Amino acid sequence: MITSERPVADVQSRPDRRRIPIDQVGVSDLRYLVVVADRSERPQPTVARLRMSVSLPQEVKGTHMSRFIEVLNRHREGVAMATLPLILAELRRRLGAASARIEVAFPYFRERRAPVSGASGLVDYDCVFAGAVDEAGIDCSLAVRVPVTSLCPCSKEISDYGAHNQRGFVRIEVRAGPDEVGIDELIEVAERSASSPIYSLLKRADERAVTMRAYDNPVFVEDVVRNVATELQADRRIAWFRVEAENDESIHNHVAFARVEWARPADGV
Amino acid sequence: MITSERPVADVQSRPDRRRIPIDQVGVSDLRYLVVVADRSERPQPTVARLRMSVSLPQEVKGTHMSRFIEVLNRHREGVAMATLPLILAELRRRLGAASARIEVAFPYFRERRAPVSGASGLVDYDCVFAGAVDEAGIDCSLAVRVPVTSLCPCSKEISDYGAHNQRGFVRIEVRAGPDEVGIDELIEVAERSASSPIYSLLKRADERAVTMRAYDNPVFVEDVVRNVATELQADRRIAWFRVEAENDESIHNHVAFARVEWARPADGV
Amino acid sequence: MITSERPVADVQSRPDRRRIPIDQVGVSDLRYLVVVADRSERPQPTVARLRMSVSLPQEVKGTHMSRFIEVLNRHREGVAMATLPLILAELRRRLGAASARIEVAFPYFRERRAPVSGASGLVDYDCVFAGAVDEAGIDCSLAVRVPVTSLCPCSKEISDYGAHNQRGFVRIEVRAGPDEVGIDELIEVAERSASSPIYSLLKRADERAVTMRAYDNPVFVEDVVRNVATELQADRRIAWFRVEAENDESIHNHVAFARVEWARPADGV
Amino acid sequence: MITSERPVADVQSRPDRRRIPIDQVGVSDLRYLVVVADRSERPQPTVARLRMSVSLPQEVKGTHMSRFIEVLNRHREGVAMATLPLILAELRRRLGAASARIEVAFPYFRERRAPVSGASGLVDYDCVFAGAVDEAGIDCSLAVRVPVTSLCPCSKEISDYGAHNQRGFVRIEVRAGPDEVGIDELIEVAERSASSPIYSLLKRADERAVTMRAYDNPVFVEDVVRNVATELQADRRIAWFRVEAENDESIHNHVAFARVEWARPADGV
Repeated sequence: MITSERPVADVQSRPDRRRIPIDQVGVSDLRYLVVVADRSERPQPTVARLRMSVSLPQEVKGTHMSRFIEVLNRHREGVAMATLPLILAELRRRLGAASARIEVAFPYFRERRAPVSGASGLVDYDCVFAGAVDEAGIDCSLAVRVPVTSLCPCSKEISDYGAHNQRGFVRIEVRAGPDEVGIDELIEVAERSASSPIYSLLKRADERAVTMRAYDNPVFVEDVVRNVATELQADRRIAWFRVEAENDESIHNHVAFARVEWARPADGV
Repeated sequence: MITSERPVADVQSRPDRRRIPIDQVGVSDLRYLVVVADRSERPQPTVARLRMSVSLPQEVKGTHMSRFIEVLNRHREGVAMATLPLILAELRRRLGAASARIEVAFPYFRERRAPVSGASGLVDYDCVFAGAVDEAGIDCSLAVRVPVTSLCPCSKEISDYGAHNQRGFVRIEVRAGPDEVGIDELIEVAERSASSPIYSLLKRADERAVTMRAYDNPVFVEDVVRNVATELQADRRIAWFRVEAENDESIHNHVAFARVEWARPADGV
Repeated sequence: MITSERPVADVQSRPDRRRIPIDQVGVSDLRYLVVVADRSERPQPTVARLRMSVSLPQEVKGTHMSRFIEVLNRHREGVAMATLPLILAELRRRLGAASARIEVAFPYFRERRAPVSGASGLVDYDCVFAGAVDEAGIDCSLAVRVPVTSLCPCSKEISDYGAHNQRGFVRIEVRAGPDEVGIDELIEVAERSASSPIYSLLKRADERAVTMRAYDNPVFVEDVVRNVATELQADRRIAWFRVEAENDESIHNHVAFARVEWARPADGV
Repeated sequence: MITSERPVADVQSRPDRRRIPIDQVGVSDLRYLVVVADRSERPQPTVARLRMSVSLPQEVKGTHMSRFIEVLNRHREGVAMATLPLILAELRRRLGAASARIEVAFPYFRERRAPVSGASGLVDYDCVFAGAVDEAGIDCSLAVRVPVTSLCPCSKEISDYGAHNQRGFVRIEVRAGPDEVGIDELIEVAERSASSPIYSLLKRADERAVTMRAYDNPVFVEDVVRNVATELQADRRIAWFRVEAENDESIHNHVAFARVEWARPADGV
């Protein structure tokens, strides 16, 4: 093993003269074992993809990348919307930066019971905890991507029988008060807005129920985002949202999508 | 620019004493603009992912990677099942190797007319031209992955109305005589085996037709592979095939799949 | 074949009462064979991924998805920054929409000559043509992602010999006057900002030159984005840019990145 | 909620007359939270991608997909090479099948200490537990994909200074006695065969050590697979292996790879 017999220069801390401040510098595509906590459920181990960065003033040549991992190591057993402010504050302090950002993307698992048999299995939902802090304050958001069934209203109406349906995804991202909204709540909003929830384990009686429920609740991608939007606008905890619905069309080899973004007006209506 | 003022050593050609012959050494994940030709259609430009390799005898340290690109450059305007033998022979000769392999994966586009309106649009099919040559001879295969609609027979039968359906894929790989079977033929076999073909452009009258056709032709993944297998076994040009059907289940967040592999018996039955 | 014997209802055109206007509704993940044209090069066939959408007023239930494909069919032989305004205008008119958007992502290939031998091969660059139009006007941007070699200045300085280096990517997105900036120019800016360009075909004398050039030009991700930013700020055609550098670190299993976004001040300095 | 008021037909159990037995039918692309156990380490929670299937005789129409999830639910807290035989036996029994297969792909995390500072962080390794059982017996394999640094011997020798290096991956798959070989052992074999291990957290003194270690140990992809092969051939526990080395070339936009497959001769030499 080579040992370090001489002092190793701190190249990163040297001055830079190009006068270009850097908005974000850090690490991305980092896969890490973490424990995530949602407000209403038990903490859950999962595998996250992380992106962490800080700003760099124009006069400094480089940041110290290893410190991102050190901060993550201290918090990886408790990654939550509630702990993002602590992690961000520590990133900012440890890196000596004016601003810091973090995005934690991970699959979150819930046990789901089939509607008739009650048979249960895990369903995976892609989630993102995101946060940014600077002198002006902190800004966090929570995103959940929910697989659903969608059944086409047009196909149903114009056909003598049947209706094309498919796997769809509803992605909801919200800004709310600190840890006020849970992953579970957003999953449920998404599922109510589509033709049917999906499950990992269905027995035949469940399949019958799910098939007929979807046929009874046809929705376009436009309907899905409007259903979600209506519900979130009525929820005074939500300050901002973006919702996107995607259908992996069963009659096409492309996706149909719709998107709405909304911010609660200043008077809170 | 640095110029090369001294002779550059050929490190790769040096002897190796570990006595480990190498099955395959080469380049992969190479993205290249090529022109592919199918037996029955006009040549088509497309973007391919290539994997090319040769064997290396135990006494040689390394291969010469740049020669793979040189061979590809000479053939990129005419990549076809019919030209694979030429490309393979050139790889083998140029690299001085006992055996050579190539895999060319690319999207292939066909213009498809909607069933009622006749409106037309391109549909993309993932294809692979694969070949290997050694002292014993040459072995080539053609693979096509075809998007389809599949509608569940169980869901249809047990429900009072509706039936879950979804986007599925049928992947067929065949070995046949030199350039005897076309991409188009395999696409058609796949589509006949599923509930309905898919299209990029459907007007409402087409959507009605496709919805009802799928409802009239329910298939499990098991049915799809059996339908394909029945047809390919009856086609005397086919010496071997592997077929895999996948359904991106609309009621689940996972895939249902089935696979059959078959080789024509030596007596050709 | 089922024929459409009855009038098929236009479900999408019906009124909607939820009072939620939709920002974007359309198709995505559509793979299509197109011909792209850059300002300075011959048109080039390639395989694009497209996302096209329009806005939908609150009182209309759904859009007409097939029309996106119809518009694309008419323009697929000539997709260029110069033709985006025409395509957008046609999307808007054909869909009867207040605003329309398009994103065309595709690999663009250039023939690159090795620095010493002059041997040539294609290199692939991921590009995006993006545009949006509404009553207020049109907004277009061009993005190019360029593979490069980056060599770490810290590793070079603190080590007695060697320096870790790796494949990196420089993504530059710009807003400029209509078709004023070419893909080639952005590729060259990115390559000048890194330790060395990359090539698909290098002979040994080239490999020697590239190795030493990279060692002579060490850069952090911070340096890469600053080098790009300095050059683009000095180019008066550029109204806005975002540049991101990524290193697929050879000593880590994650990515190091830096990002700068900049808009030319109103007084044009 | 729709309740199931009538008996639901078991469509899958009906006879099929096409006379095509199916090799594999089941579920794939199933993402599940599991606990994996390696022979030498504490059990570890992780997120797996699973593929499970059974064979289906020619006279049966379909399999019962929900049972795969039921079997997984019972074993998800203890997925290990040591428990694969139990899971396979249960799949076979529960599905009434002649043969059954399972593949469990997952990231496995190890804490790695930096070589000089001792600073520690997690590194992720993609692993696969695979097994198949039929009347003839059981066949299991373990695969590990290890990120490494590789430094090019040719570039080092022909250049006055520097040497291109990059992130590489060494994938080792082995068949051995039941649970005889651990993930950790394969990771260490892979790392010894490359220019240097990689780490998630390195301080400057570590970076110096890693840079110089890589420069002192240049390897081609051919060397990497030969180094692994030499070591595994000498290990009498190993009955079969396949090793593949990949370099994400820092001077190219493609991958260089080499592959060796080997089975221990019947006389065990």
